[in-house]
Amino acid sequence: MNKWWIENGTFVTMDESQPVVQGHMVIENDRITYIGKERPQDADSISVKVDGSKKVFMPGLINTHGHAAMSLLRGYSDDEALQTWLQDYMWPMEAKFTDADVKWGTSLAVLEMLKSGTTTFVDMYDRMDEVAKVVQQSGMRGVLMRGAIGLCPEDVQNQKLAEAVQFAKDWNGAADGRIMTMMSPHAPYTCPPEFIEKFVQAAHDYDLPMHTHMSETVAEVEQNVRDYGVRPVEHLDRLGFFSRPSFVAHAVHLTDEEISLLAERGVAVSHNAASNLKLASGVARVPELLKAGVTVSLGTDSAASNNNLDLFDEIRLAALIHKGVSGDPTVIPATQALQLATLGGAATIRQPQLGALRAGMKADFIALDADQPHFYPQTDMISHLVYSASGRDVRDVWVNGQQVVRGGICLLLDEEKIKAEAEACYRRLAGN
Amino acid sequence: MNKWWIENGTFVTMDESQPVVQGHMVIENDRITYIGKERPQDADSISVKVDGSKKVFMPGLINTHGHAAMSLLRGYSDDEALQTWLQDYMWPMEAKFTDADVKWGTSLAVLEMLKSGTTTFVDMYDRMDEVAKVVQQSGMRGVLMRGAIGLCPEDVQNQKLAEAVQFAKDWNGAADGRIMTMMSPHAPYTCPPEFIEKFVQAAHDYDLPMHTHMSETVAEVEQNVRDYGVRPVEHLDRLGFFSRPSFVAHAVHLTDEEISLLAERGVAVSHNAASNLKLASGVARVPELLKAGVTVSLGTDSAASNNNLDLFDEIRLAALIHKGVSGDPTVIPATQALQLATLGGAATIRQPQLGALRAGMKADFIALDADQPHFYPQTDMISHLVYSASGRDVRDVWVNGQQVVRGGICLLLDEEKIKAEAEACYRRLAGN
Repeated sequence: MNKWWIENGTFVTMDESQPVVQGHMVIENDRITYIGKERPQDADSISVKVDGSKKVFMPGLINTHGHAAMSLLRGYSDDEALQTWLQDYMWPMEAKFTDADVKWGTSLAVLEMLKSGTTTFVDMYDRMDEVAKVVQQSGMRGVLMRGAIGLCPEDVQNQKLAEAVQFAKDWNGAADGRIMTMMSPHAPYTCPPEFIEKFVQAAHDYDLPMHTHMSETVAEVEQNVRDYGVRPVEHLDRLGFFSRPSFVAHAVHLTDEEISLLAERGVAVSHNAASNLKLASGVARVPELLKAGVTVSLGTDSAASNNNLDLFDEIRLAALIHKGVSGDPTVIPATQALQLATLGGAATIRQPQLGALRAGMKADFIALDADQPHFYPQTDMISHLVYSASGRDVRDVWVNGQQVVRGGICLLLDEEKIKAEAEACYRRLAGN
Repeated sequence: MNKWWIENGTFVTMDESQPVVQGHMVIENDRITYIGKERPQDADSISVKVDGSKKVFMPGLINTHGHAAMSLLRGYSDDEALQTWLQDYMWPMEAKFTDADVKWGTSLAVLEMLKSGTTTFVDMYDRMDEVAKVVQQSGMRGVLMRGAIGLCPEDVQNQKLAEAVQFAKDWNGAADGRIMTMMSPHAPYTCPPEFIEKFVQAAHDYDLPMHTHMSETVAEVEQNVRDYGVRPVEHLDRLGFFSRPSFVAHAVHLTDEEISLLAERGVAVSHNAASNLKLASGVARVPELLKAGVTVSLGTDSAASNNNLDLFDEIRLAALIHKGVSGDPTVIPATQALQLATLGGAATIRQPQLGALRAGMKADFIALDADQPHFYPQTDMISHLVYSASGRDVRDVWVNGQQVVRGGICLLLDEEKIKAEAEACYRRLAGN
């Protein structure tokens, strides 16, 4: 049995019974078995100790929406209108992607995420076997799905569906349970209703949760009304999507009635603040969603529309932007912003063993160097994590009880090789 | 003569004639004397060389609005309504500030700013001799002024004015020209018109530029109309404020006519995006200001309302938020966002020798570690600096030709002492 002890740390637990603990945490294999102010009772029998002083520990962050391989296109096109960006830049490049591109693009993303404190990520893309292999090797936790666009002949649709099912069956529970799978038609505006229904049926058949893009832009909501007579929430509801455990990305443009229906159906929302701003999609109604009881979590979306995968940026943005837009400085206070990226993420992907530091929870956690000017004075560590911290402050990361980053270095990935290969992939794709 | 050479670097110059240079830069004393692709002609005679590979160099950032000493109150009160925050938390604590508090609070702020790539900051506060002494020692560049609130008896007003004048005279041009001074009545809503006029007269008498807070909240604009019959821009214009070289902080709530008048008078605006969001003041009309030809720069405001002094956060926020709020993804493109923090800052404080890497300019520049996952692939370094970089990526900082940060360590400040003293000041102020 692998049992060890972090001594004299500051722990931001996300556990209401003891939000901040100055003390100790014991880990046994993949679980936290003790956290508290007092030394563990069996302290003398624990041989491995880690000095926690000058560090702040917190649950690993959970990124609930992204397309990791698109990190290859970071900075390739910025500040363009959405359709220009997609049609003239993203899609032509993505059409050239090979297995190797997905492998190295995903590796680059996983490297960036792990080093900045994300321990679990949701990924919707193509060539997902490559993604799963990277997750397996990296030690990270991944919620993976083959995202399928249905604007194609029926035989191609069926092939995509079969791929999605096969991938979900092959990998669910793999890598010591670090990999979970879901079913994911891309979006209501890229998938005919019958195609979405086939995904819903498959999700029922194999007992899988579902994820999709929804109501990211005004234009797609209007198109949904034109094409199907209803807005996207009602549309997906009619297609049975919300009869499955499910969550949607973006959900920027919602009516009060749609928010109520999401709450009623138990549908969670992945809030992608930076991506929605950068693509000028707007600002999601997060305070209203939370007030209605909808589970909200944070996603970076891809590095092509963000352009980084540092979830601390999303936490700060979530805490700032809704105050400015609503005119109410009390909305999304610091603790709630941090919850979105931890407990909210865990609830979104339905993994109640993640998102908090508490005995019995999975040992997914991170340590930040708190001995830096922007963490002083030590007034309120939760405030500092939200308003001052950056992913670059993360020094150590553990997933499932295993250390995967030590002193800022990824232990299970070859950073130099990944950077070089990702650069080479991009050069080839860009033809220079 | 001190002459040296950075070899094989990537230089983001902010110079339109060559925006990104893969090459070399030569520094002589406090000036850049060469930058270009080719080796310097007198290369063999330059004995001191610095290896620039795997780093990206750019002009030092210019933070055009803040109150450094308030870093002591970082995280002391968050997520409160503005008046509660000010009256119940900030003002009672600030009333207890001593010289030592200003010294150590400012030191903490300067430490954070320098380490995150800011080489020049504007500071409006009290006990400014303490601030100037910290600037002198740190090697940083500072634009300093005694900010005066005029809600007090006339003899106290006169004393504050005299202090402001004395400080401005004592320190202008000090520390090898690194310190500049200005005159600064705090704001139209905290200063009676006659008090503001006295500052304008003193600014004329001593040929000093002026700075103030303006139109941060809807409430203060409405109060201005009630009290004086006009909105703040016209009010300040009537008081002669804009007859001086001047710039205002915030300027969130402006009419089209006010924007035109600011442009006409050559008044610059310090955009404080994070602070305006956190205090729920709103979002300044930056695209309209820029379109009208107003000089815009970036400020963090104090760490009590931000809560960090990392100007890279403000750059990214400026690039993101105006897209999301306007619905136009092409506004404030990456290059323009970076200009706000460099050339825009230099124009705001009227220091044309700052803000770009070009022969003849002052040698105020920074180096970031670009060999990290979030800088790959190397598609567009300007995009990466805006959308992916953080102040924590800064490794080296030079001001006026002198290195002040090396490998992330401040060379002229004692970081351990500053953190300990700032913590002690806060504990004493908070009474625990």
